This record gives sequence, structure tokens and C-alpha cells, in this order.
Amino acid sequence: MSDVPSVSAELLTGLMDAVSERGATPEGGVDRPALTDAHRDARDWLRGVFAERGYACRIDGIGNLFGVLERAGPDAPVVMVGSHLDSQPGGGRFDGAYGVVAAIAAIEALNEAAARSGTAPRCNFAVSDWMNEEGARFQPSLLGSGVFGGEHALDFALTRVDGAGKSVGDELDRIGYRGTDAAPDPCAYIEFHIEGGPELEKAGKRIAPFMRYWGAVKYRAAMLGEQAHTGPTAMALRKDALLGAAHVIAGLREFPADAADVLHTSVGRLEVEPNSPNIVPGRATMFIELRSPDAGVLETAEGKLNALFAEAAARAGIGFEVISVDRRPAGPFDARLAAMAEAEAAALGLGTMQLDTIGGHDAIPVGRRCPAIVVAVPSVNGVIHNPAEFTSPEDLHAGADVLARMLWRLERTGGDLSAAAAL
Amino acid sequence: MSDVPSVSAELLTGLMDAVSERGATPEGGVDRPALTDAHRDARDWLRGVFAERGYACRIDGIGNLFGVLERAGPDAPVVMVGSHLDSQPGGGRFDGAYGVVAAIAAIEALNEAAARSGTAPRCNFAVSDWMNEEGARFQPSLLGSGVFGGEHALDFALTRVDGAGKSVGDELDRIGYRGTDAAPDPCAYIEFHIEGGPELEKAGKRIAPFMRYWGAVKYRAAMLGEQAHTGPTAMALRKDALLGAAHVIAGLREFPADAADVLHTSVGRLEVEPNSPNIVPGRATMFIELRSPDAGVLETAEGKLNALFAEAAARAGIGFEVISVDRRPAGPFDARLAAMAEAEAAALGLGTMQLDTIGGHDAIPVGRRCPAIVVAVPSVNGVIHNPAEFTSPEDLHAGADVLARMLWRLERTGGDLSAAAAL
Repeated sequence: MSDVPSVSAELLTGLMDAVSERGATPEGGVDRPALTDAHRDARDWLRGVFAERGYACRIDGIGNLFGVLERAGPDAPVVMVGSHLDSQPGGGRFDGAYGVVAAIAAIEALNEAAARSGTAPRCNFAVSDWMNEEGARFQPSLLGSGVFGGEHALDFALTRVDGAGKSVGDELDRIGYRGTDAAPDPCAYIEFHIEGGPELEKAGKRIAPFMRYWGAVKYRAAMLGEQAHTGPTAMALRKDALLGAAHVIAGLREFPADAADVLHTSVGRLEVEPNSPNIVPGRATMFIELRSPDAGVLETAEGKLNALFAEAAARAGIGFEVISVDRRPAGPFDARLAAMAEAEAAALGLGTMQLDTIGGHDAIPVGRRCPAIVVAVPSVNGVIHNPAEFTSPEDLHAGADVLARMLWRLERTGGDLSAAAAL
Repeated sequence: MSDVPSVSAELLTGLMDAVSERGATPEGGVDRPALTDAHRDARDWLRGVFAERGYACRIDGIGNLFGVLERAGPDAPVVMVGSHLDSQPGGGRFDGAYGVVAAIAAIEALNEAAARSGTAPRCNFAVSDWMNEEGARFQPSLLGSGVFGGEHALDFALTRVDGAGKSVGDELDRIGYRGTDAAPDPCAYIEFHIEGGPELEKAGKRIAPFMRYWGAVKYRAAMLGEQAHTGPTAMALRKDALLGAAHVIAGLREFPADAADVLHTSVGRLEVEPNSPNIVPGRATMFIELRSPDAGVLETAEGKLNALFAEAAARAGIGFEVISVDRRPAGPFDARLAAMAEAEAAALGLGTMQLDTIGGHDAIPVGRRCPAIVVAVPSVNGVIHNPAEFTSPEDLHAGADVLARMLWRLERTGGDLSAAAAL
């Protein structure tokens, strides 16, 4: 059994610490929204790691960054492993970055194990750093992986703009990450990620493949009032867009009521115009999410949301408009990859459970192109999108070891998922 | 009667058109928040007018800009006339700017009339352009006049910062308007302004002195939640600062209920942090105003507001903090100046009425140093703080004529307000 790969704790910790320095915040998290200078710094660091370890760097047209380790000839199947280096504003250090550094640590372990066993390599590997997973600065989220998976046209993605009117394309040019390389064409995609919820911790388990992903419906909608002086304007004559938005925000919170296990709702972003202390707001744009594993629940909630817009606008004496709607249906991840994760965790003595993911992951659009999985490690207190997010070094290491062993199954079967799951 | 001053329509219109070019917007308004480049352009233009017409330019330590016409010797009383050239973001062209250009047009008319009458001048005049009346970019509003009137220490005013962290002092330096001159010391202050409400228009009147100003209580308060992922975070565990703010905004709107004639309330600005579409907001800072002519009504409303903070925070399962409170008590303007405005309007055949002002005006803090008045001309549809704000050329001209005739009374009485009102 000496040829089973085992991840170097020193390598994993070193990579995790190094990436955490890029965009580090005083609160102990990172601030690396997509295509900012801090995000570029993290990617530049990653390219350096690729160069050092002999991975060929490829950057595609939407700025996805890949490190390709061709070790079995140009025609061998490519197993892709990765996640994303962008973060939320004032986010945590593990979200995304863990999946990228675990990929490198696992591939290195696999390579060493393969060398020890003395058999000819049968798979190539690619590490992926997807562009704009978070969707904090540019919407929609999962933008780079969405282009890769065929959900978005390249031109659509390049022309998305941030709040200051800067486009993805221009910002890619600015930080030097608009590429012309073809993306690798993988036979499978594996992403390790912090859970971002408390279930593993509550159950006392260590590893959970996500079996399904919840559907999400994202609305951008504006309440339309009329700007006026907050002093003399008679109360009865005010058309207050922010008041209308307040009615929507308060009303939306009632939707999940007793069904909060199958419906999550939120307004995370609100843009008030002109946002002056002494002007009745003329426009308030809400970024609304509805999430559910159940298509019927989502459809019902969407109907209620549209009724709520009308009711809230009527109460405030104003109008409204729906600006855009993005719908991501619920669906399954690859059951064979999930089974491999469970089996390898069990072999390492790690307790496992099956979870669904409510948040989006790059593996969802990538899964339109090849079998894909997300495997979760525990989040202390379930915290994510917060500088306090934390996963213990032991759990980070356990996850990377499971990943290395999954790669070992794919290596031995030449990328045949069914055979690898049956080993 | 040929020595009664009469304003040149050509001069008034020319000045109004010229100032409106500075920071002009496609919607027909102006965008000149305090100490922006557009605001500087308007002030540079005003200094040019001062130079052209022989007014000595003075800039004090907080950037108030004065044009002083010393025509009766250094010991003669100074009558000050003016308003402000800063605007709301995307504001209208008349708010503030009218009072400045009317001052120049009226003083020029007075000068010509004095020359015709051949008597020795008995008053000096000063045109004022107060720094940051609007309070849109820097809070509090009425900042330059507040320093002049002794309400704020100079250092307090210079260290106010905008949303990007830039201070008043640094921005004054940047645009070249931090001065060292002493401000003029006036015997009276007269400000003509658009009404910013519909009362004159509704009553079919042309001129209204403001007899009193409403009190205002301005709160800056933050709802304190905890940022988390909008996907996986269980609804029951969310601490949504924006939800708490929504409860405050909706609840506050109920305060005026049947007493909207004596209580105005608003939340004009809301800062959501981190304001990402997929993060439960961790902090939401509200800029709240309560306005009333009645101190008791304000006190009751303030008590209800504090109870509302606690109730809204409890409903959302979060905390809150009051960051700052500014209180501006209600009070009277100078009755003699009001009587002069009414008498001169009547002499011109212009219908008058008495109004109170609900919005703030520089004349309020200036009134702590000398007798002061604001005189209103009609606003079409009562619109203000909006590019559509409009006052007809006839009403602008009528107001300037009333102003010139008020100055004429003060000239003839050597700045004795009681004598001038009794003429």
C-alpha cells in the first residue's frame, strides 16, 4: 500500500498560508473581489506555483486560469481539479482558495505515489482557478465556469459591468488575465470546498459529497419613486423608492415561514439613488435571491415575489420594474464521484455524510460539460462569506488526502469513472 | 420715484444662465455637490463676476466665498445677501444659485439707483456663497454658514469626511478654496430662495417671507447584523442588518400618520455593507430625519424612533447603534425683514403670503449672528432637489426686484432695520 498517495501537510499549509497573504485583511480574512489588484496578486502567485512545479499555464478568453500537468501524453484523459481565488469583499480565506491549493497538494502527492509504484501515468491533470465565482463585483456569479460550461456566451460575460461601470473585459485586460488559450477538456471535475454550513460539524463528520445543488432564482428589480426634498415635500406627495424596497425586504422575509428547510430568500444588495440624506430616494434597486431544491417551491415563490413587488409599490405610491431574472435549476452531481469520495474517506477512517449544496459552485456549470462533484470539509460554526470563516488544519489535510486518493483511482483506471468508483 | 432700483432682466437672466452651465446635466439640472470640480467651476465663475464688477473677493477658513462691495467707507454697516452654489447630486439649477445671482443683480440695481439719486452711499454690501449648504456629500448640511454663525468649530467642520473618506479641509485645498480672510460682519442677512414647496403656486401668490423655520433632528444609526452566505445559511440563523433597516424605514413612515402637517420623516440615505448580492448584510447605516415646527412633537418622535430601533432590531434578531444625533431647534426669522419684503412686494403689486420653511437654509445659522430672513419665490409644482425644479423668469425677476427695494430701504436708513421696516 506504499503507493497510495498521501498529502504533505507542510506543502498544503505552506500553500494555504501563501495564498492567504494576497488581499489579507486585518480581520484575518481576505478581500479579493474578482479582477481587483488583490485578486491579480493571488493569481500571479498561483502562476508562480505552476511554473515552479512544471504545470503549463493556460488562460482562456474569459480569464479562467489553468495549470496543466501533461504527464501521460497529449491524448490521455484530463482530470480537472480546482475552485476559485476570488473572494467576497471582506470574505474569508478558505472559500475557493482551499479547493485550489488542495488540488495542487493532491496532484503532487499523486505524482509521488505514481513514481513510487513505477507504473506508466494514465491521466493528465489540470488545476483550475475559475474567473468570478463569487459574483460580488460582477453579476452573475459563476461567470468563468458558466462560459466554460456553455451557459453564457463569451461576449455576454466580457461585457458585464461592476457598480462603477467597468467591464469584465476591460478589467481582465487591466490585470493581464484576458487569454487566448483553449481551456482543457476534462473527463471529470472535482472541487473540494468548505461546507459553508454547520451540518458536518453538528453531525461530527469530516467529509460530505454534495449530492444535489439547490435551484436559485435571482431577481434584480427596482422600485421607482421620485426624488424630492426630505424637508418641505408633503408626506402625502412623497414617492419614496426606499420605502417601497423596505416593504419588499420585510415581506420577502415571511416567504420561508414554516418551510425554511426548502426555501431561502435574501436581499443582499440594495442600491439607493441618489442616496443623499436630504433627498427622498428616487430609485432603489434590489438584488434578490430565492433558493430551493424544489422547482415547484421556486415557482410558487417567484409568483409571490412578483405580487409583492406590486403590493409594496402600491403601498408606497410608486412604480417598479424587473430588470433581470437569472434562473439556475436544481440538479444532481455525479454519483460515481460522490461514491469515490465516500469510499476513500471511509478508508481513511473519516466519518462521512451526504449533503446538498444551497450556494452556487463552479462545479454546477462545469457539470454541463463533464461529470463533476463538490466535496465538502467542515466549516466551524457554519460561517462563510465572513473573515471569521475557519476550517481546522486537520480537516483541510483530511480533505486533500481524500482528493489525492480519488485521483489515484482515476489514474489507475485511465479516467474511467465507473471503473474508478467500482475499485 | 426714478431713484427706486429696478433689476435688469438681461443681467439677471445672463447670470442665471451662466451659473447653470457649471455642472449642467443632460436632464436640465446641475450636479455640483460641495467641493467637486463642478462646484469649483461655479465658484471660479462667481469670482470672475466679482472681479468684473469691483467686488473684493474674500474666502474664509471654512471656504465661504464673499464678494464685498465697499462703497460707503470701511465703517459703514454691511448688508449681506446670498445663498449657495453647491447642489444636490443630480439637483436643480435654481436651488441656491438663484439667491446668489439675485443678490448681484439687486446690488447692481441699487448702485445705479443710488447714483441716479446723487446721495452719498450709507451701506456696504457683501454677496455670500456659503460652503456646503446641501449636506449631500458632507454632513451636516449648512456647514459653512454653521461655522460663520458659531454653531460649529472650524476644526470640526474641516474634518468632516465624505463617503470615500475625503475631508472638507483636503477638498478645500484641492479645489483652492481654503481661505484665510475674515468673513464680513453684517448688520443683516437676506436670502432669496425658491420655495421648494407648492404653497405659493397653490395660493396664486408671488412672494413669501419665511416667518419661522421648522426644527430638525437628524439621526445616523446602524443596524448591526452578521455577514453570512445568502445560500447555505439557515434562515433562522441569519442576522440580517438590512431586514432590520427595512423595519425601521417602514415603521418610521407611520409616525406622521394624521399629523403630517407638523411632522415630516425620512430615510434618504442607506449604506449597506458589504452590499454583495450573495451576502446577508452585516451592517446597514440609515440617515434619518425628523422635522417639525413644534419642539414637543420632535421630542415625542425622537422617543418613538429610539423605541423603533429596538423593536426593529429585536424582530430581525440583531443589534443597533446610534452613531450621531444633530438637533436644530425651530425658531423665528427677523420680523422686520419679513415686513420689508411684504411691503415692497405689495408696492410692486405682487401677492404675498407668510410661510414657514421646513428645509434648512443658511439664514438659520447666520441668524445667530445678525437679523436674517429667507424670502421665497414660487416653485412650479413644488419640485426641488430634482432636475425638473423650475421657477419662471417673471418670478425670478419679481423676487430680485423685491430684494433690490429691500436693499434700498436699508441704504436710506444706514442699515437700521427698525427704521427701514417703518419707512
